[in-house]
Amino acid sequence: MNINFRHEINGEKLVTAIAQDYETNEILMTANMNSKALNKTIETGKAYYWSTSRKRIWLKGESSGHTQEVQEILVDCDMDAVILKVKQNGAACHKGYYSCFFRKLNTNNKPNIMNLNNEDIEVISEKLFNPEDIY
Amino acid sequence: MNINFRHEINGEKLVTAIAQDYETNEILMTANMNSKALNKTIETGKAYYWSTSRKRIWLKGESSGHTQEVQEILVDCDMDAVILKVKQNGAACHKGYYSCFFRKLNTNNKPNIMNLNNEDIEVISEKLFNPEDIY
Repeated sequence: MNINFRHEINGEKLVTAIAQDYETNEILMTANMNSKALNKTIETGKAYYWSTSRKRIWLKGESSGHTQEVQEILVDCDMDAVILKVKQNGAACHKGYYSCFFRKLNTNNKPNIMNLNNEDIEVISEKLFNPEDIY
Repeated sequence: MNINFRHEINGEKLVTAIAQDYETNEILMTANMNSKALNKTIETGKAYYWSTSRKRIWLKGESSGHTQEVQEILVDCDMDAVILKVKQNGAACHKGYYSCFFRKLNTNNKPNIMNLNNEDIEVISEKLFNPEDIY
């Protein structure tokens, strides 16, 4: 019964990680973790992820200071995904929103997902900061 | 501004999908979607995913009847992940729990994730049905 780093992306074996606000259950972001990122998260109590594009481990908030203090880690039935229940310092999204999921698809429009237009996407959250002030 | 099926797993271009209870915000499961799965989900209002192991689209609940009625679809900043806010019929997990995330890691133990023992993992949810009665 071990964590199953089953998803291989760009040559790295990963699990899906979901960060969730530990009080409201709002989903903040999703990213990937290799075994080293998960171990560092457990050791330090702060969320570390694996960047599939930059191919390195990153501490969430390393440039913004918007770290995530991990309160609890849940694992799923297949042991290939984890939820980090976190206290989010600042905001999770580099675009200035508390959650990266700050937009919804207007599914009533039956949008063409390969060619979305402005009416197909709606911002549903409030912007908390201007990214240019932080990064 | 289009959905970015950026994660290639086993040769298929995918986004991460997270199913979340639309009333309580409990996270039910995570899986992947290719463009066809997302389109079918939008068209039908029921959650379809891409199975990276079986390499085919599947309707959540196709064998159990435990379908997910999609109330809302959120997209993230990078357009490479979606949240399905769903009304879950029955239970999401094939092991008989409402959510696939029915266990937590006892991080206080500083568990070795490559060699977990029984004390490292704790069931935190109630079993709703016996899988043998359903599948």
